[in-house]
Amino acid sequence: MSVVRVHNFSISLDGFGTGEGQDAHAYFGHAGERLHEWMFATQGWQPGGSAGVDNAFMRQHDPGIGAEIMGAGKFGYPGWHEDPEWKGAWGPNPPFHTPVFVLTHHTRSPIEMEGGTTFHFIDASPAEAVEQAKAAADGRDVRLGGGPTVIRDFLAAGLVDHLHVVVVPILLGRGVRLWDSRLEGLEQGYHVEATSAPSGVTHLTFTRAHE
Amino acid sequence: MSVVRVHNFSISLDGFGTGEGQDAHAYFGHAGERLHEWMFATQGWQPGGSAGVDNAFMRQHDPGIGAEIMGAGKFGYPGWHEDPEWKGAWGPNPPFHTPVFVLTHHTRSPIEMEGGTTFHFIDASPAEAVEQAKAAADGRDVRLGGGPTVIRDFLAAGLVDHLHVVVVPILLGRGVRLWDSRLEGLEQGYHVEATSAPSGVTHLTFTRAHE
Repeated sequence: MSVVRVHNFSISLDGFGTGEGQDAHAYFGHAGERLHEWMFATQGWQPGGSAGVDNAFMRQHDPGIGAEIMGAGKFGYPGWHEDPEWKGAWGPNPPFHTPVFVLTHHTRSPIEMEGGTTFHFIDASPAEAVEQAKAAADGRDVRLGGGPTVIRDFLAAGLVDHLHVVVVPILLGRGVRLWDSRLEGLEQGYHVEATSAPSGVTHLTFTRAHE
Repeated sequence: MSVVRVHNFSISLDGFGTGEGQDAHAYFGHAGERLHEWMFATQGWQPGGSAGVDNAFMRQHDPGIGAEIMGAGKFGYPGWHEDPEWKGAWGPNPPFHTPVFVLTHHTRSPIEMEGGTTFHFIDASPAEAVEQAKAAADGRDVRLGGGPTVIRDFLAAGLVDHLHVVVVPILLGRGVRLWDSRLEGLEQGYHVEATSAPSGVTHLTFTRAHE
């Protein structure tokens, strides 16, 4: 069965998935790259990187995925929709290699990139987006790519089957939080595990019984 | 050197140290006892309990402590100061066995209990409270007992040397948060470790270099 999965979504100890002050030069605002240093240090990211638990989790990002859904805030800096040439921040060959559904009120024609990635721009509810992405994934799973607002909306709508959150031991103080009051009791629908890594981060997995 | 320590302070994944709706019958509001089940399951709490990492952390609560500071919200239910007979929720022999400084705007005479606990009621700043508690601790350490508002105020004032937080894998959605915006960058003054336990909780320790 095709399921919806979140991988490698990193938050601070105080729950922020991105910092304050995002712009074209600071995708994560004042957080900079601090939420993702654990990932850059893995073998899956760069030769010679670590091959332990961080790497094992990190490498689950791609296998079995047939489509991604992402928010407008992951596709580009605030205001990208006013730039008709904007094709995302990943260069000519983005690291998705599947259809990618970008949730936006500013739809445009699909953009076919090298390597199998095609960006589709849809103005849709979470449930509609999952339906479209599953159809495109052709039996494989759908990855929900973020950011924090999108993930919490899909969690609140009961649409996430597997959630992997990485808690980084920093306090950002401000930004966009992953958790909100609609998610009270979320753990009741999942099997939850916590795994701390020597790097200092803690991997949390929420897995649905039927997955 | 006498230091200020926090032990076994439990929060939800979304950062709440207590739930909403606290009263005389629900000290932690809608959280109930869910933040502390990990502790009740240890050998240090009850014979036959677990003897692993949760127990090892739990047992650090008492040794070397010469005084405790607690907030009015830990000493009693909201409104306890209107009850002249209120002596805390711990019975005639409270589990402190040292002087305890209760921070309150409603001061009263000290109450001497069995077993070495004396409650002192002081209307003082965090720094003043630490000064008084250290004097009473006679060279031993001071434990900061909570609740969340008190701990974050002392953290913001730079007065905590050792912080042990236990992250419980539940989402409370509402209540009183431990972290706030004043604590941005807190990790920079500490060595931070995360240790996940088979019970599902994750122990976080913030330790100052000079400790």
